[in-house]
Amino acid sequence: MNEGANVFFVLLGAILVFAMHGGFAFLEVGSVRHKNQVNALVKILVDFALSTLAYFIIGYTIAYGTTFLASAATLSGENGGGFELQGLTLVKFFFLTTFAAAIPAIVSGGIAERMKFVPQCLATLALVGLAYPFFEGIVWNGNFGFQGWLEAAFGAPFHDFAGSVVVHAVGGWIALGAVLHLGARLGRYTADGRAIGIPPSSLPWLALGSWLLCVGWFGFNVMTAGSLEAISGLVALNSLMAMVGGILVALVVGRNDPGFVHNGALAGLVAVCAGSDVMHPLGSLLVGGVAGAIFVKGFEWCQLKLKVDDVLGVWPLHGICGAWGGIAAGVFGLETMGGIGGVSFASQVIGTFAGVVFAFAAGYLVYGVLKAIQGIRLSPEEERRGADLSIHKIGASPEHDIGR
Amino acid sequence: MNEGANVFFVLLGAILVFAMHGGFAFLEVGSVRHKNQVNALVKILVDFALSTLAYFIIGYTIAYGTTFLASAATLSGENGGGFELQGLTLVKFFFLTTFAAAIPAIVSGGIAERMKFVPQCLATLALVGLAYPFFEGIVWNGNFGFQGWLEAAFGAPFHDFAGSVVVHAVGGWIALGAVLHLGARLGRYTADGRAIGIPPSSLPWLALGSWLLCVGWFGFNVMTAGSLEAISGLVALNSLMAMVGGILVALVVGRNDPGFVHNGALAGLVAVCAGSDVMHPLGSLLVGGVAGAIFVKGFEWCQLKLKVDDVLGVWPLHGICGAWGGIAAGVFGLETMGGIGGVSFASQVIGTFAGVVFAFAAGYLVYGVLKAIQGIRLSPEEERRGADLSIHKIGASPEHDIGR
Amino acid sequence: MNEGANVFFVLLGAILVFAMHGGFAFLEVGSVRHKNQVNALVKILVDFALSTLAYFIIGYTIAYGTTFLASAATLSGENGGGFELQGLTLVKFFFLTTFAAAIPAIVSGGIAERMKFVPQCLATLALVGLAYPFFEGIVWNGNFGFQGWLEAAFGAPFHDFAGSVVVHAVGGWIALGAVLHLGARLGRYTADGRAIGIPPSSLPWLALGSWLLCVGWFGFNVMTAGSLEAISGLVALNSLMAMVGGILVALVVGRNDPGFVHNGALAGLVAVCAGSDVMHPLGSLLVGGVAGAIFVKGFEWCQLKLKVDDVLGVWPLHGICGAWGGIAAGVFGLETMGGIGGVSFASQVIGTFAGVVFAFAAGYLVYGVLKAIQGIRLSPEEERRGADLSIHKIGASPEHDIGR
Repeated sequence: MNEGANVFFVLLGAILVFAMHGGFAFLEVGSVRHKNQVNALVKILVDFALSTLAYFIIGYTIAYGTTFLASAATLSGENGGGFELQGLTLVKFFFLTTFAAAIPAIVSGGIAERMKFVPQCLATLALVGLAYPFFEGIVWNGNFGFQGWLEAAFGAPFHDFAGSVVVHAVGGWIALGAVLHLGARLGRYTADGRAIGIPPSSLPWLALGSWLLCVGWFGFNVMTAGSLEAISGLVALNSLMAMVGGILVALVVGRNDPGFVHNGALAGLVAVCAGSDVMHPLGSLLVGGVAGAIFVKGFEWCQLKLKVDDVLGVWPLHGICGAWGGIAAGVFGLETMGGIGGVSFASQVIGTFAGVVFAFAAGYLVYGVLKAIQGIRLSPEEERRGADLSIHKIGASPEHDIGR
Repeated sequence: MNEGANVFFVLLGAILVFAMHGGFAFLEVGSVRHKNQVNALVKILVDFALSTLAYFIIGYTIAYGTTFLASAATLSGENGGGFELQGLTLVKFFFLTTFAAAIPAIVSGGIAERMKFVPQCLATLALVGLAYPFFEGIVWNGNFGFQGWLEAAFGAPFHDFAGSVVVHAVGGWIALGAVLHLGARLGRYTADGRAIGIPPSSLPWLALGSWLLCVGWFGFNVMTAGSLEAISGLVALNSLMAMVGGILVALVVGRNDPGFVHNGALAGLVAVCAGSDVMHPLGSLLVGGVAGAIFVKGFEWCQLKLKVDDVLGVWPLHGICGAWGGIAAGVFGLETMGGIGGVSFASQVIGTFAGVVFAFAAGYLVYGVLKAIQGIRLSPEEERRGADLSIHKIGASPEHDIGR
Repeated sequence: MNEGANVFFVLLGAILVFAMHGGFAFLEVGSVRHKNQVNALVKILVDFALSTLAYFIIGYTIAYGTTFLASAATLSGENGGGFELQGLTLVKFFFLTTFAAAIPAIVSGGIAERMKFVPQCLATLALVGLAYPFFEGIVWNGNFGFQGWLEAAFGAPFHDFAGSVVVHAVGGWIALGAVLHLGARLGRYTADGRAIGIPPSSLPWLALGSWLLCVGWFGFNVMTAGSLEAISGLVALNSLMAMVGGILVALVVGRNDPGFVHNGALAGLVAVCAGSDVMHPLGSLLVGGVAGAIFVKGFEWCQLKLKVDDVLGVWPLHGICGAWGGIAAGVFGLETMGGIGGVSFASQVIGTFAGVVFAFAAGYLVYGVLKAIQGIRLSPEEERRGADLSIHKIGASPEHDIGR
């Protein structure tokens, strides 16, 4: 039964992280304008589907070396034709697919309200099929000897338990590359460089997205253990504490703004992924709290100073808070800081830096190529009408729209 | 602990499928007009409650022979007075109740916006207490020797692992019977037979319903195994692949319509239930993809050619895609098609056909009798005002309605 | 693996009950007016965060004697520096935190639409850090010999399996104390004492809240067992039956009002917590049904006769139905009523009464002190403008608000 229980455990993780994708969808629905809500919904669902295909066909093989396609023309052979039917392989693939699909889901929030549909689909295929698993394999499967080199040089490999860097920072820095190519939404900045507020459509939908993400996140972090023997109550508690820290600091720094409070929870959770298995709960509280502040200040800095129109703030949220989490694991995971130890500050800095550089380059390249080949941005008329009517021929409230 | 772990496993399945009923509710909320949203919400919750009662009192006994009422005047006797308190019996009942209650939840989407409340409650009692468990017992408990005959005649019984036919096709074809008696909504077709579009109220609510259904579906399929020893990672992966196929094909065939994309995911999941434990993942991808196309084309055919006003398209979605899934298990479950084998094409066709005929007859009969006895349709004035105000004396947005 | 499986089990309970807090948020979003939706969302999330801190620092220690802070300056010592890293302690803390945080979440619904933000935060710290764990420890940890005395005097201790009294009645009666200090919303009652209806903003959001609560409730009740060995299918079935009873009776007594139907499900679930492990399923159906009637009649009595403006009816829902559940466990848990036995009617009445008196006193005291020190109520101008704009400087639909 051991095996069955582990399958159950990892499957529950996959289901919880799959539910997070609903969270990505509704977070974006609430954060964009009404005329782009449908597009947010369709993007997330279709990106998830394309990610699954790309990761099944090539991505998982790049990261972990095993291939589903070569070994399994039929399931009727011994051991399911190599599929290990009741084993962990298939649910682990499902679980890791939901991680991989987080990449386009993160990017989606940055490029919202003006991106063309087909290039976004192509970018998803390239990013989830090739770019993400390349770095994933380096960190989580020891590919190319990077981890071995870090361990030899600094005493410990790059520790990224549940993906502050591998998933979140990578997603966030890819998004930055994409947003730089895409440019700001029409009307976001005046000719003389002042920012014009573009209000979100709905706080309840934004909050629902945040709730789904928060709830699913406990699967994201805890089930990363991969088996019941390795389950760690500490991971759950640290996730809780970091979320709490993110909420409370974003509440104060963000002056009780509901968008900051709900994204503050996510900021804390992004930052805790890397070190959730080695940090002290009070360290996690602090790491999450700092992330909450980083998000609020980073969002304002990005939008108002840098004039980078990252609509949902996915670069500060996933990109910067993820990098912070990667580095923080090298501080608060140390025994001297109350942690369990076994981490190296230098390895954390180098690993995080590598992820950030790789991701930004990948995002900048992929979206740059697509921009050169076919263009990535809706026409001004399409953007003004909204992505819903322009792409999907229907708005979010058809009865109301037609009733007018 | 084995026993406890199995109870936990099946219970999680029950919780996940219970959550799907919230999905049914919100899918209908988003798909109907604003004036019928409250009715959608109340119908699903009350149908679930009535289903539980009917299935507890008689339905489960019809399907599986065991009765709760006779053997358990008190729990204080040996072995919980026959209740096997910590055993699997009670959570299996809960799990199967959530399946049984899917029947009126499916029907609800077809008969939306014009059905009277009390006859719908009575239909639920008859369908969940009598009709559904009759066929359920034939397929899943071997009642009446149907399965034995198929096995003797064609080498394998009718294989419907998680209910493409037993639950979905049966629900969908019952709905067709109901909708035929009920007739189209006022204003749906002109006197000369043209269809007039009746727009849905809200894509975000529709999408939330789809997400809840998709997430819960992994419990629907995986926990059908019934014990941890029998858990199959293949079932999870196949469900994922079929959902992905449904999304992508509905995207293309449905020309990027958000309703089609979100229902396409469900179409794939409906179709994969039957063979999810025996098909190859690539087979499942194909089966789900075909289901996505079937739904889009079937919905348009049903609404525009047949002029059957099945509001949410539950007949194409559950009825036709469910039948497709039953038959497809007999193709893609074969060893020659990469599957595990142990299925018979003839048995699948016969079993599916039996389910379809039985369900249509049951639905046509039950709603026909109710129509003859007390009428099943709101008056034209009530329908125009909306089911919310007519039945529940309150609309979906009371503050806004009163503020006008 | 035993230990790991138990950690998994309790963790799933914590995740499910954490999701219920999303349910509290959306139930309030739908039940209040549009101008107070954001405040509902922020209150629930921030109260959850503050509850976690207060319970971590002091509350859990008051209830169970163990302290996290003293024993764990670093995790690197033997056995995780006393943290028992892979043991049950940490997830049990998480699980019980989600219970403790239900107190301010319950109160939040009563004090909605006119409460100041900071005093509510302070009340949460006092209630979750001190008051709730004081009574929790008496009932669930045998503190102060109360349970021992009841057992000696009446043959059985006060039986409150999952917290009909410890969580729900306590929360509801604290809320009554708060609401009495706060007074009715502006315009709720005329000068000559007539009640003016204040319509809820959105039934779909209210229903979503109810669904999240219902789904998570199965974790609330079942995972209270604390280990897989102790899991009870009966608890799950009884929860189901009580929910069904609450729905159906509220449907009839509440004349098909959607708010009553969706809260009726919750009323049944509140009432079944205490005796869900000892009552017969038919007893649970009855207990839940009575709770459904209590809620409908109690809500009307509270609002129209007593003129206590408890916005969501949390006093009847959690306070009165919780007390009913505590007493009902002493009736329907008896062997003569088909239950498993081991409960004492007298102990149930005394324990329930103690909880009610303690909670009302605590709530009245805490909110009274805060009222005296800094005031607890928004100014009339702030209340008219709405808590959203007054406290959070943004409404629930910013795009729409600004577009006007």
